[in-house]
Amino acid sequence: MSQETFTVVGGGPVGTLLAISLARHGYMVGLYEGRPDSRQTSIYQGKSINIALSDRGWMSLEKLGISARARSHAIPMYHRAIHGVDGSLSSLPYGKDGDAIWSVSRGGINEQLLDIVDDEKNITTYFEHRLVDLDFESATATFKVKDDNELVVEADYLFGADGAYSKVRRLAHNLPRFSYSQTYMPQCYIELNIPANPDGSHKLEKNALHIWPRKDFMLIALPNPDGTFTCTLFLNYSGEPSFESLQERSAVKAFFESNFADVMDYLESPVDVFMEKTAAPLFLVQVFPWSFNRKVGLIGDAAHAIVPFYGQGMNCGFEDCAELDGLISEHDHDWDRIFPAYENARKPNGDAIAELSKRNFVEMSDLSGDRTFQLRKMIEAKFSMRFPQLWSPLYSMVTFSPEVPYSEALRVGDEQNTVMEKIMALPNIEDDWDEQYVMDQLFELASEALGDGQ
Amino acid sequence: MSQETFTVVGGGPVGTLLAISLARHGYMVGLYEGRPDSRQTSIYQGKSINIALSDRGWMSLEKLGISARARSHAIPMYHRAIHGVDGSLSSLPYGKDGDAIWSVSRGGINEQLLDIVDDEKNITTYFEHRLVDLDFESATATFKVKDDNELVVEADYLFGADGAYSKVRRLAHNLPRFSYSQTYMPQCYIELNIPANPDGSHKLEKNALHIWPRKDFMLIALPNPDGTFTCTLFLNYSGEPSFESLQERSAVKAFFESNFADVMDYLESPVDVFMEKTAAPLFLVQVFPWSFNRKVGLIGDAAHAIVPFYGQGMNCGFEDCAELDGLISEHDHDWDRIFPAYENARKPNGDAIAELSKRNFVEMSDLSGDRTFQLRKMIEAKFSMRFPQLWSPLYSMVTFSPEVPYSEALRVGDEQNTVMEKIMALPNIEDDWDEQYVMDQLFELASEALGDGQ
Repeated sequence: MSQETFTVVGGGPVGTLLAISLARHGYMVGLYEGRPDSRQTSIYQGKSINIALSDRGWMSLEKLGISARARSHAIPMYHRAIHGVDGSLSSLPYGKDGDAIWSVSRGGINEQLLDIVDDEKNITTYFEHRLVDLDFESATATFKVKDDNELVVEADYLFGADGAYSKVRRLAHNLPRFSYSQTYMPQCYIELNIPANPDGSHKLEKNALHIWPRKDFMLIALPNPDGTFTCTLFLNYSGEPSFESLQERSAVKAFFESNFADVMDYLESPVDVFMEKTAAPLFLVQVFPWSFNRKVGLIGDAAHAIVPFYGQGMNCGFEDCAELDGLISEHDHDWDRIFPAYENARKPNGDAIAELSKRNFVEMSDLSGDRTFQLRKMIEAKFSMRFPQLWSPLYSMVTFSPEVPYSEALRVGDEQNTVMEKIMALPNIEDDWDEQYVMDQLFELASEALGDGQ
Repeated sequence: MSQETFTVVGGGPVGTLLAISLARHGYMVGLYEGRPDSRQTSIYQGKSINIALSDRGWMSLEKLGISARARSHAIPMYHRAIHGVDGSLSSLPYGKDGDAIWSVSRGGINEQLLDIVDDEKNITTYFEHRLVDLDFESATATFKVKDDNELVVEADYLFGADGAYSKVRRLAHNLPRFSYSQTYMPQCYIELNIPANPDGSHKLEKNALHIWPRKDFMLIALPNPDGTFTCTLFLNYSGEPSFESLQERSAVKAFFESNFADVMDYLESPVDVFMEKTAAPLFLVQVFPWSFNRKVGLIGDAAHAIVPFYGQGMNCGFEDCAELDGLISEHDHDWDRIFPAYENARKPNGDAIAELSKRNFVEMSDLSGDRTFQLRKMIEAKFSMRFPQLWSPLYSMVTFSPEVPYSEALRVGDEQNTVMEKIMALPNIEDDWDEQYVMDQLFELASEALGDGQ
């Protein structure tokens, strides 16, 4: 068993999972987190988007045998509950019967992983240690400790698992040949709350992800075990309507009442919250390489911050950890080979889920809108049901098929798009969509584009 | 006449041109350059790529009536002189008869512009003033002066014209909602030299841009007025062959001798230079916005560093200045309107020339290669000659048509691509390319895609 040492910067879900994986491979791990221990001080209150965990995330946890506790706190959401502007409610399943994505609290899963970390003898955890400098040649890190002292930490290797605002990544900006991009989305977000009923039950259907799709903006709600819902309002930063344009209290009130009438009795002071909060930005980060000098690596959001519209952010970060875990065994602890293998395997998938997530805002926020879009989904669903091995819906590949890499899902999804555009261009598709000849033509096009079929 | 004040950071070609433009609009301009005055100390020796100036650059200088002196030092290049690996030499004109791109030295044009700056009473120039900090709210800049003192400079507005490594832009990374990307190309470069003949004449044809296209790498040579050529070797950073793989002197020698045999007697110690120099990286920078708080702007490479394969870097920067110059008049010195108008007008063009320049490496480095590519160029040239108003070659639009914005050139070029792919897919195109029916079909496709034609 190797006794090489690792510094892991960032004690969030990805950093803790990585630390556990490294420790179980025999490394001595120092896990450094800038914030206090959330199990002792309440720092998460209203501070982060609720997270959807799906098959890639679960599988990554299961590989380390640590999914049970998270599962017991997670709420399965089997379908989207779509709230029309007129108060109508419709349902769109996420996949086949029993397929679900799971609502978990970021803080909750983090604390469950920290509890496991505490039981690992190879991991020492340091809270309130904020990274301030890093020597990328030697993996020597300098932390500012809460009392303002500086601590210099040497290790054989270091991973930056310090999230979308990663300090490790920002320090890497000055390295030669480091390509990076940071792109702001037009949307920002604020969080709102729906309290539980007095008896602790949920005010809206519990086992669903609720969406109020309004095309240029949307509200979503994810259930919590305590009967509450965490809601997120996604709205443009500027333009009309936007966080910038909605300055007057009366305008904000009118905005909520006209768009979210059916939930106004449930939301906790949405107008007050809107007026008081600074909307948080959404941005994408893409960089390459993900490792430096075979000493320092990036993982999770630090390597590929994405937008939350596919519910894949933490899933992708966990998958990074699972991939790395496998490569440590495969390359027998030879980090000269592990680092390049890791970044080459994961970078295309990070890019693919970034692209897919960006596109999915339109998909989610226009769910109840465009008739052609709905028709198209129906044709696809019917065809997929009949020829499941020829046609798996993109959403299912991304969410329920961890054996299909994100990059492959994106590629196949684009092929499917091309096929469906041809189908939707058929002369009488609006009337004939349920006719046999449409299925026949789709079968022909799909077989040609996507494989042999049945 | 306004007596508002401007700080211009960067005394390169774009910074000096901008300063002249602002001064002539009546602003008091402080021009700050980190390096010493090149007219007093020789700092340019072998330090920068020779530059191709073409119509956009000339037109921008002419708008300010300051093109004459630069023109007298520039050498027109009417065609590409293509050196085959077997020593064969062929010629490919840049445009119609008389169309030329012009070889200028970056240092030379910079010094000519600095001389003009010296005559402008509204401009004060400070060399060896290196920007270290900037308040984006107030446009107050802090410079480190050569003796290590700090100088705080207040002004109404500030422009960062400080090039591809712009400090102004890097300081902006910390501003909210600033999107940025920096992408390294696979290629790096070194400069080589071809000395003049003893009588001061050129060893190769003077009025041409010489290219040794070798697909994955290439050598180019631009003429200087003193009879020398400045050569640039573009070669991958890693892989085979690359700056990384060519470590042994014998391998470098063999590389030069097998690829550039016809010029080995002319190049000045190419193997020594290769062994001694650190290859410089090539990278693209794209950011948005280009202005902050209606106080601070970015211009030239600071806003959009591109790769040199289209010879448009300085042309694009000069065009930024010309556009801004027009907007100052149009919006009557109202910088609340000038800044957004400027960035909205120029950003799509900066993005377009970035994309075009990236693509052009393949075009240049494969010039003597692919037969289909050559055939396609011939068909295009013939068609363009016959229907010049329907079809202007992309290269001509970019280089000789300043009235066509880069973004429009890119769009039209992509339409042309689609059309030409259909033509090249005709069954017997290899044999029939000169037949009338090919022209007819091209006319039909082009008219449909690109307009009414003649």
